[in-house]
Amino acid sequence: MAPVTEIGQEMYALVERLYPLCRSITGDGVRATLDIVGEYIPLQTHEVPTGTQVLDWTVPQEWNIRDAYIADTTGHRIVDFAASSLHVLGYSVPVSATMPLAELREHLHTLPDHPSWVPYRTSYYKPDWGFCLAQDTLDAMPDGEYEVRIDSTLADGHLTYAEHVVPGQVPDEVIVSCHVCHPSLANDNLAGIAVATFLARALARRTPYYTYRFIFAPGTIGAITWLARNAERVNGASPALGAPPGRRLGEEPRAGGRVKHGLVLACAGDSGHLTYKQSRRGDAEIDRVMRHVLTASERPHRVTEFTPYGYDERQFCSPGFDLGVGSLSRTPYAGYPEYHTSADNLDFVSPEAMTDTLAVCREAFAVLDRNRQYVNLSPYGEPQLGRRGLYDALGGRSDTKQTQMAMLWVLSLSDGEHSLLDVAERSGLPFDTVAVAADALHGAGLIKA
Amino acid sequence: MAPVTEIGQEMYALVERLYPLCRSITGDGVRATLDIVGEYIPLQTHEVPTGTQVLDWTVPQEWNIRDAYIADTTGHRIVDFAASSLHVLGYSVPVSATMPLAELREHLHTLPDHPSWVPYRTSYYKPDWGFCLAQDTLDAMPDGEYEVRIDSTLADGHLTYAEHVVPGQVPDEVIVSCHVCHPSLANDNLAGIAVATFLARALARRTPYYTYRFIFAPGTIGAITWLARNAERVNGASPALGAPPGRRLGEEPRAGGRVKHGLVLACAGDSGHLTYKQSRRGDAEIDRVMRHVLTASERPHRVTEFTPYGYDERQFCSPGFDLGVGSLSRTPYAGYPEYHTSADNLDFVSPEAMTDTLAVCREAFAVLDRNRQYVNLSPYGEPQLGRRGLYDALGGRSDTKQTQMAMLWVLSLSDGEHSLLDVAERSGLPFDTVAVAADALHGAGLIKA
Amino acid sequence: MAPVTEIGQEMYALVERLYPLCRSITGDGVRATLDIVGEYIPLQTHEVPTGTQVLDWTVPQEWNIRDAYIADTTGHRIVDFAASSLHVLGYSVPVSATMPLAELREHLHTLPDHPSWVPYRTSYYKPDWGFCLAQDTLDAMPDGEYEVRIDSTLADGHLTYAEHVVPGQVPDEVIVSCHVCHPSLANDNLAGIAVATFLARALARRTPYYTYRFIFAPGTIGAITWLARNAERVNGASPALGAPPGRRLGEEPRAGGRVKHGLVLACAGDSGHLTYKQSRRGDAEIDRVMRHVLTASERPHRVTEFTPYGYDERQFCSPGFDLGVGSLSRTPYAGYPEYHTSADNLDFVSPEAMTDTLAVCREAFAVLDRNRQYVNLSPYGEPQLGRRGLYDALGGRSDTKQTQMAMLWVLSLSDGEHSLLDVAERSGLPFDTVAVAADALHGAGLIKA
Repeated sequence: MAPVTEIGQEMYALVERLYPLCRSITGDGVRATLDIVGEYIPLQTHEVPTGTQVLDWTVPQEWNIRDAYIADTTGHRIVDFAASSLHVLGYSVPVSATMPLAELREHLHTLPDHPSWVPYRTSYYKPDWGFCLAQDTLDAMPDGEYEVRIDSTLADGHLTYAEHVVPGQVPDEVIVSCHVCHPSLANDNLAGIAVATFLARALARRTPYYTYRFIFAPGTIGAITWLARNAERVNGASPALGAPPGRRLGEEPRAGGRVKHGLVLACAGDSGHLTYKQSRRGDAEIDRVMRHVLTASERPHRVTEFTPYGYDERQFCSPGFDLGVGSLSRTPYAGYPEYHTSADNLDFVSPEAMTDTLAVCREAFAVLDRNRQYVNLSPYGEPQLGRRGLYDALGGRSDTKQTQMAMLWVLSLSDGEHSLLDVAERSGLPFDTVAVAADALHGAGLIKA
Repeated sequence: MAPVTEIGQEMYALVERLYPLCRSITGDGVRATLDIVGEYIPLQTHEVPTGTQVLDWTVPQEWNIRDAYIADTTGHRIVDFAASSLHVLGYSVPVSATMPLAELREHLHTLPDHPSWVPYRTSYYKPDWGFCLAQDTLDAMPDGEYEVRIDSTLADGHLTYAEHVVPGQVPDEVIVSCHVCHPSLANDNLAGIAVATFLARALARRTPYYTYRFIFAPGTIGAITWLARNAERVNGASPALGAPPGRRLGEEPRAGGRVKHGLVLACAGDSGHLTYKQSRRGDAEIDRVMRHVLTASERPHRVTEFTPYGYDERQFCSPGFDLGVGSLSRTPYAGYPEYHTSADNLDFVSPEAMTDTLAVCREAFAVLDRNRQYVNLSPYGEPQLGRRGLYDALGGRSDTKQTQMAMLWVLSLSDGEHSLLDVAERSGLPFDTVAVAADALHGAGLIKA
Repeated sequence: MAPVTEIGQEMYALVERLYPLCRSITGDGVRATLDIVGEYIPLQTHEVPTGTQVLDWTVPQEWNIRDAYIADTTGHRIVDFAASSLHVLGYSVPVSATMPLAELREHLHTLPDHPSWVPYRTSYYKPDWGFCLAQDTLDAMPDGEYEVRIDSTLADGHLTYAEHVVPGQVPDEVIVSCHVCHPSLANDNLAGIAVATFLARALARRTPYYTYRFIFAPGTIGAITWLARNAERVNGASPALGAPPGRRLGEEPRAGGRVKHGLVLACAGDSGHLTYKQSRRGDAEIDRVMRHVLTASERPHRVTEFTPYGYDERQFCSPGFDLGVGSLSRTPYAGYPEYHTSADNLDFVSPEAMTDTLAVCREAFAVLDRNRQYVNLSPYGEPQLGRRGLYDALGGRSDTKQTQMAMLWVLSLSDGEHSLLDVAERSGLPFDTVAVAADALHGAGLIKA
């Protein structure tokens, strides 16, 4: 794991600021979150009206909440939204009533196996109300009447998401997506938001090859909304599946949209090893790059197959789009007991872990950005490197330098079918060495991109 | 191994009835065998005249035998066909002579390594006569004259085979083939005949998807005869190999005949583990189904590569036809010392073993019958399952049910390239769960076959 | 390792004769070497003038040397070319001077880790002069003035290489290449030259199927010269790489030249295990043949992936040609400390090792020469082998002979997609058995090539 760095402390500070906010898939909590992120990197915010059709879904009503509690007959608040945004079932309809515990129980969610933790629960699409609380708290509640109040509104409004673009040398895009809909859960996904934010900053330091688009959107409905509004940008997939939503019938079969690669960032700050979940394709360039970087860095890590469950890779990798989008986490989705509970708090994430996640993202994008297929312009026999100052004059030695070997490998595999990453993997040479050799050969006019 | 069942007892009873009959590749023994099987399932019997050209072969003369023995000078029958049909070399020409032991020896077949067992030997295509006997018997025969008599006839007649069809929802066929030419050998192949018979009965209980055709025919020449008379039904294979025998020159290249899958049943009743021998292709759907079912059932088993030796998979998988036909046995061809000897008797097979073989066939055909490729009709992002009552309303929990996972997997892989078996193998979910999920999605109009 | 044979002694004697000569990439040492080889097998020698453009290279000036030494002030020769051709930096320009040791040192090459060995060094393309000597010798040289003299000439002349062709039944060619440019180094590559010479002799004993072309040429520039002058013979490679040098624009895309397979022989006489380095393709027929033969022979051996470094496989496998050329060595390129030093002397190679290398080459070419794809002319069902005298008449036995099994395998896989080597590998039968079975089937008209 990386040592504590200044950037790690900054990411952690961002997580601390975002932690208390009550986020959901719509509402002011998301807006407040994006306002704070916007202090670090400029964001373009999108507001999509309730009722908008997005792919197979409809943007729901906007939910906002001001207060919520369960109080005993003395007025003492036993469960209080002010103490933690987790206490209210997400998207609870308003309620103001007094009822006996027996009746209230049907609206209470606990974790009997972890009696001191508060679970995170939602009911986005079925009108309901409820409270989440510790089993210990529930056990201490005597029978009797309780006052329950949820001061929320569900009304036509908007779904909010934001984008930040780091312009590159080419319009082809890499998307980095993280969900912004979870309330007071630190690893899931404030750590992902923080890493994405500082990754965007780092990439902007010099113009990358690809254009990098960061998407901060609520899970599922947010990604679906983004996809619906960017269908041309991501069109793809198998002819068997018909035209994508953004393309009119009769149009030419598409060559694929601008989005070439992508990464979903989630659970980016816990103390576990890194986990890369491959795209649905499994052989997308991002998959190969992530596997290469994780292996070459000698970090302990896991690479897992795609499953149609988890975060918004579900949407980006749905078979109609089938994008080359993988997902990077530390301990993955639902892989730790603290997942979706109040124990996923500020103690559960660390500056060191976020620094490490950020470092891997930067290493991976450094490879992705320089990975090219070249064609050898002098493919019949070896070109005479010595005459071009690219080869040692003294012959007979057996300790030929790595850079010379890298040049021979690049020449050998630059047949229009292999990329520099292929060269690095086949030769066992570091990607950097291979990329430097390719630059030298390109400079000498021996290969073309 | 399965416990004893009523059906197991019935299969064993059938084997007991068939055991004494003297079967060969033609003759009344085959007819008597098919008559008995016909008491269990209706059979369509075919009689093909001697001299009929069948592929590269010619239907031979019909062989029948009434009596055969070796007697000593006192008239005592030392070797007697009445005691076991194995005692006569199959297809022996008639003989009636007295000769000294020295001369007789050239016509005697024994198994010196198993001195009490009688071997099974034939000479279908080279006119010859002979006796098979225990080495112990031979050792006890004093020198001297012996009367030898084989009361057989080899004459123009017919080759006999039979079919039983279980009609399905589609005309595409699955063939199940077993050889009916072996005399008093219980495992090879009375057990196969019994399992096939009761498998046909079980399949008929409700209309299967495929049409199942059961073939009861003598080995090699019978399968070749069936193929010659059903060339259009099975045409297949590589263009390099020319037109199949049933297709006229100038006809359009064939899309393949009705026979889509098949299984050869042999050695189905011994106490060994199940062995599945793959088709020549190795990746036929039946191969994948059998591997899946044997693995998923957690039975100890073996899966072996195709070899061009064994039972009638040799013919079905010859390169011109190259059908997706595998072979299911318990201990495979020539894999046990009792193979092709009198020790392959009624004690060598059991109701339990046949029940187990039958059960695997039924499980395999249940998968084969429901295995489909679907196309996701809502492939851009996930369709909203909740609105269709297919998804839990309460979000946030990490114990999503298997059926919901199966639906997501089916949606993800329904791209026109993956079958439900692919889904089951990729997801690790039971095939049944996947098939049920596909039914639900199909019912909701989300996928089409 | 093979026992000492007469042929082993003859190969060793050839190495002994060639050892003292001072070879380089041009000059009379190469000519003298080819003259001696020409006493064993007839050679066609080619002389290519200085300045000829060959692919990306230019044939350099010819280098010849008569004498060279470092002498002390008493006239005592401390380093003397007459003692070993290694003492002079290859391609040294003439020098005649007296200079202090401090100045001379910049022109001296030693191996500090092996102080008694003399290294082999060259400077073909950058004008320079120098001496190679033992570190011990250098350490014993007192400061002071030394006379240095190199009596060499660098002048317009020729590059020399030679070919020997063993005519085959078809014009398709197998090339066997070995470099002839190294001075007094026994394993690298006099052993390769000797094995190639006696391999040519052995192949000529009866007309092989392929035409075998042996190339004796200086490393790198010699192979490049040969390729430049034989572009039509070897044209190949990927469309992405453009027309090969010998083909005019507008010509039909080439189906590949006559050279179908090839082997580079180097380091063929040391005591290490055999090493086969695969062609760039990795799945060329020569790769499969060599892997098969090395494995089937149960010799300890290594098979390595292609790397774009080593011997002239670098040129033959450059991506524009991409020939199916592998490289056979014992201990491979730069894999032993004696490599490119005076310790690669006559003690470092043995008749036994060269005999073993020769034997593997002969076994491999025996397979390559007989490897064919056949088409089964009776692919629908098995043909009746018995009627053609190819099958035992007595049925029922389970010990069917290997030859019969081989016939069934050949019939099964003769579908226009599999070669006899495929049959051998799939069946586990020896290649010889498979080839004999194919001959029998071919003789019976059941398969065609």
